[in-house]
Amino acid sequence: MNLVKVAVVGASGYSGQELIRILMGHPGVDLVCVTSRQLAGKSIGEVYPRFQHQRFADVKFTASDAAAVVASGAKVAFLALPHGLAHEYAKPLIEGGLKVIDLSADFRLKSAAVFEEFYGTPHPAPDLLPQSVYGLPEIYRDQIRASNLIASAGCYPTSILLPLIPLLKAGLLDPASITVSSMSGVSGAGKKVALDYLYCECNESARAYGVPKHRHLSEIEQELSNAAGTPVVISFTPHLIPVNRGIVSTTYASLKPGVGIEAVTAALKAAYQSEPFVRLQGPTGGADIKNVVFTNFIDIAWRHDPRTGRVVLMSAEDNLVKGASGQAVQSFNLLCGWPETEGLL
Amino acid sequence: MNLVKVAVVGASGYSGQELIRILMGHPGVDLVCVTSRQLAGKSIGEVYPRFQHQRFADVKFTASDAAAVVASGAKVAFLALPHGLAHEYAKPLIEGGLKVIDLSADFRLKSAAVFEEFYGTPHPAPDLLPQSVYGLPEIYRDQIRASNLIASAGCYPTSILLPLIPLLKAGLLDPASITVSSMSGVSGAGKKVALDYLYCECNESARAYGVPKHRHLSEIEQELSNAAGTPVVISFTPHLIPVNRGIVSTTYASLKPGVGIEAVTAALKAAYQSEPFVRLQGPTGGADIKNVVFTNFIDIAWRHDPRTGRVVLMSAEDNLVKGASGQAVQSFNLLCGWPETEGLL
Amino acid sequence: MNLVKVAVVGASGYSGQELIRILMGHPGVDLVCVTSRQLAGKSIGEVYPRFQHQRFADVKFTASDAAAVVASGAKVAFLALPHGLAHEYAKPLIEGGLKVIDLSADFRLKSAAVFEEFYGTPHPAPDLLPQSVYGLPEIYRDQIRASNLIASAGCYPTSILLPLIPLLKAGLLDPASITVSSMSGVSGAGKKVALDYLYCECNESARAYGVPKHRHLSEIEQELSNAAGTPVVISFTPHLIPVNRGIVSTTYASLKPGVGIEAVTAALKAAYQSEPFVRLQGPTGGADIKNVVFTNFIDIAWRHDPRTGRVVLMSAEDNLVKGASGQAVQSFNLLCGWPETEGLL
Amino acid sequence: MNLVKVAVVGASGYSGQELIRILMGHPGVDLVCVTSRQLAGKSIGEVYPRFQHQRFADVKFTASDAAAVVASGAKVAFLALPHGLAHEYAKPLIEGGLKVIDLSADFRLKSAAVFEEFYGTPHPAPDLLPQSVYGLPEIYRDQIRASNLIASAGCYPTSILLPLIPLLKAGLLDPASITVSSMSGVSGAGKKVALDYLYCECNESARAYGVPKHRHLSEIEQELSNAAGTPVVISFTPHLIPVNRGIVSTTYASLKPGVGIEAVTAALKAAYQSEPFVRLQGPTGGADIKNVVFTNFIDIAWRHDPRTGRVVLMSAEDNLVKGASGQAVQSFNLLCGWPETEGLL
Repeated sequence: MNLVKVAVVGASGYSGQELIRILMGHPGVDLVCVTSRQLAGKSIGEVYPRFQHQRFADVKFTASDAAAVVASGAKVAFLALPHGLAHEYAKPLIEGGLKVIDLSADFRLKSAAVFEEFYGTPHPAPDLLPQSVYGLPEIYRDQIRASNLIASAGCYPTSILLPLIPLLKAGLLDPASITVSSMSGVSGAGKKVALDYLYCECNESARAYGVPKHRHLSEIEQELSNAAGTPVVISFTPHLIPVNRGIVSTTYASLKPGVGIEAVTAALKAAYQSEPFVRLQGPTGGADIKNVVFTNFIDIAWRHDPRTGRVVLMSAEDNLVKGASGQAVQSFNLLCGWPETEGLL
Repeated sequence: MNLVKVAVVGASGYSGQELIRILMGHPGVDLVCVTSRQLAGKSIGEVYPRFQHQRFADVKFTASDAAAVVASGAKVAFLALPHGLAHEYAKPLIEGGLKVIDLSADFRLKSAAVFEEFYGTPHPAPDLLPQSVYGLPEIYRDQIRASNLIASAGCYPTSILLPLIPLLKAGLLDPASITVSSMSGVSGAGKKVALDYLYCECNESARAYGVPKHRHLSEIEQELSNAAGTPVVISFTPHLIPVNRGIVSTTYASLKPGVGIEAVTAALKAAYQSEPFVRLQGPTGGADIKNVVFTNFIDIAWRHDPRTGRVVLMSAEDNLVKGASGQAVQSFNLLCGWPETEGLL
Repeated sequence: MNLVKVAVVGASGYSGQELIRILMGHPGVDLVCVTSRQLAGKSIGEVYPRFQHQRFADVKFTASDAAAVVASGAKVAFLALPHGLAHEYAKPLIEGGLKVIDLSADFRLKSAAVFEEFYGTPHPAPDLLPQSVYGLPEIYRDQIRASNLIASAGCYPTSILLPLIPLLKAGLLDPASITVSSMSGVSGAGKKVALDYLYCECNESARAYGVPKHRHLSEIEQELSNAAGTPVVISFTPHLIPVNRGIVSTTYASLKPGVGIEAVTAALKAAYQSEPFVRLQGPTGGADIKNVVFTNFIDIAWRHDPRTGRVVLMSAEDNLVKGASGQAVQSFNLLCGWPETEGLL
Repeated sequence: MNLVKVAVVGASGYSGQELIRILMGHPGVDLVCVTSRQLAGKSIGEVYPRFQHQRFADVKFTASDAAAVVASGAKVAFLALPHGLAHEYAKPLIEGGLKVIDLSADFRLKSAAVFEEFYGTPHPAPDLLPQSVYGLPEIYRDQIRASNLIASAGCYPTSILLPLIPLLKAGLLDPASITVSSMSGVSGAGKKVALDYLYCECNESARAYGVPKHRHLSEIEQELSNAAGTPVVISFTPHLIPVNRGIVSTTYASLKPGVGIEAVTAALKAAYQSEPFVRLQGPTGGADIKNVVFTNFIDIAWRHDPRTGRVVLMSAEDNLVKGASGQAVQSFNLLCGWPETEGLL
């Protein structure tokens, strides 16, 4: 396997760190550039003791601007920056001939107006939106292969979209009936040094937050609307639970009249039975965080409730892997023409 | 305060243990009888080292049958038995002149048929059902005061009923639209020695279970139907999360046309603003397990989502206190004519 | 019981918060003043939602200086300030006629030189040191009763001193042989908003820190030396473990020639068998955090290892209660002439 | 790389499960046989949902006896059985030409008498003891390469032996002065369905256990004595802490007169600076479980305490990897003549 030169821009957070962990085990990667203003000058092993004695441990963080990243010879750049900063790199890197995989939300929305509604500021680079591809490989595999700007899907959205999209595409659900509760591990909040995320504030606790209009709703509804062929508006409540990693989402939707569990099962199987990273647990199985952490899998289970006419969709993923860095590497493999599972199994 | 003689029947589980903890701090209680077949002969302090050097630590567990409990002189008996066994004590204790507060689900349902539907066996003592009172003091305070058989409300039900009942009574909600996701600490499963509840199987994990027809649905729907004046069927999914104690419930319901957040707020305030144990966190506050554990409070917050027309209700309680033993003591205080908060604040 | 007017100075950290929790349940306390520069103007219930609907929930934090605390009419002031600030209040409060119970380390050392060695700065009020009493009631009960400046013992020190002092007093141990490893919950680090104490940095981890010269060594060795009647120098390593509360300490010491387990047991029983908060678990029992959290107890167990000639002492306490706020209230009860257990059982 | 046929005997526990996880990612392994009486007939993916969609997921557990394991064509067998059962397989497998790597304690002790002293029963196959090699590759690398019975080192012993052996070999320590406290995650207790290991009994708690004569002492002292060239007896206390995985050990030992920190550092560097899995964190670094979990590394840090003349050794490892299955695979790589890190980095 020929090595592909790779840059990681902004690797000081939890998803950047997880990305490095995955790239260390990827046989096709040559990590030529890792940037972080705050960590510049230190090696990966110095910053993250857990990476000592491993491949890339001696690679040094730099404070590189986009020009320096281009000069590094990287062919693909992962952007693991806080939301709102990706455009500073995306544009010059693409112009410099790199393919860009952005882990932030900056290029996930097709509508600059929706971006402004949910993020509270005008989109900083609306001209790039038309060319970006939503980085959910199970849905946009071909477009990802051909793209140079991949907006890797968010953690909550991935856990909610993958179960729902096949059912909406097949017209099995009442699109106005969807309600979702998700539970996320604390790494989902990023490496934010704030009172709310101190150990004693999170441990032995759990709470809903971001109600009723969490930012991720915008990309969830965009993609659900695409699938349904009609505007879809849903209710979504994220919860913080005391685990380091992992998301569980439980989704309710009313089945259209006459639709039964067999149609649900058939639609999910048709969509995913050959997917390497989607594990269908069926109408009797479950979705449990412990089965997916440190993997790129999403587990999906489902039930029909004849008493209410609703289907219950349960999904579990690792927010840092399938919900962030693993999924980005999945897109990277597509870009490189490699097996999609390379470095991920 | 004159001491009331009290018996605890079946105190080997987590809610029995919590009940003892609460009774130790209750100035009106004289604990004259504690039964457990498996623990008979040992003192409370021997069985639970945490209770050593405290009141009642020297009280010994007995294998007492109902007659012996009557003979102990107890005026009130708490039953903290596994589901299905309460009737063996309830009938003879009542006949022996005791008031009975049952923490199990055995007497919560008014319909023996619904019991059989959800619990899979015929009700063992259907003749007692008409006289039992559902032990949710905020709703049935007067009936509890006058009863001799109180079926203390369940943990999930309490967290779901208290936010919904005032809104259904006021006719603000579409009763067909209700969906609930709840998260519970592991003590909710009881002290069951089973693989599923081992530390390494629960820690760093979370999952939905009991989908789509958890047993608690039966009492939830019974009480919601009472409040709405019409049969109510809901979707409810419990989740296991890695905390010892605590429940968070997040409930969606569609507001009837023309109903706004003000009406929701007004209905909740009218119902609960004088309640000692219901803390309304309002339309901007939250409900967080860490604020309620080791207390008998339930915190309730709410939001209106104008995009979907739904209200989001968030509630948090300690499943072992307000969801079990604390609530039982609240009823006990009512039975004794004492301030409802005695021993609970 | 006549209410005693009490002030809490600096109540924004975890031990201040725990102190408020304990005082809320204390029948002899009238909380007339709570100070915090950063929380001034807010009520206790606003700052700590867990305290809403409880006694003192409406008491407002003030930015009071010492003069204002004196003017509040308080007879006793608890200082729950970060280390190094207590003297700003201690001196004027004592001059104003109050008794002061300081939860910090500022007045625990009798030697200003040792303070400077371990804390790196000259002691800010060395003239107060002679009059302060080390606030470990089981050892200094009479002196506490008569004092107006109590330096409440530290969390690690309490867990280490109580098992060792009787054995050193009885001359059973080789004083040069003592090594201790302690494990503490994360609240022991205080409410410090720092990367090290984020949930994801503490959860699923454990580590030694402060090796080899943790600040608490100074007060531990001072008190051990007092007990032994000869200078004692020990090895002590604290560890951070992922629990909210609780300390376990395991101590090794060589028994002097001819000393057996019976002498150890006898010395511990003689010292503590009537102590309300010391629970001797004996030479076959254990010391487990779960049995002491949310209580003022310390559990002590011990073993003789004839292979090495060492005794192994195991102790467990809640670092926020017996290791901080509960112990301070124990001293407070002594000051007030009340039963030592008032508000603590 | 030619695939080597491998059998795993008794794979229903946590270390068996971890072994399968590691073997799945090992490029040189063909897993031809997995045995478990209780799981026979089910595939790995059915039993462990986390392994679905991965290599070996379809391999079925069998109830194979030793003859059937030999017939499977396996060249190497890992025994992941409860203690006391390994000999039933070890003897016939070796006779059948397989090399055996035993993860239990059955063949770790050279003395059948010491085995009986610590395990309470006569050794079931004392004739095999002379030919077994203690499976600690950093110490016995050459012997492992040449052996057909490797008794893979225990979890606590690995964390304690690796820091101490070079210092004892170099004669830097007083061998009579060694005291150790170790903290282990709950998976160290195995997948035992017992009250003590329920989530609510372990979470938010910590305790010492197995005091003063834990079984692992026997192999620790055997190997320390070998290193010192004189019998070594130590004090060792294990603690259970609420994490899934990981061990931290903190060891005290008195330096011989005239020995300083430089000699300690030099001895550790000489022993380990080229070792792939030993990461020396030096006299200012630390040893933290979070940096080693899910890896085969052991981190070692140390301090000199001039006040007591003791050295403090801190080590951290994953009890299931370097403390069990990873270490076994390290030996397996040696047996196969492969790079020792194969499948482990």
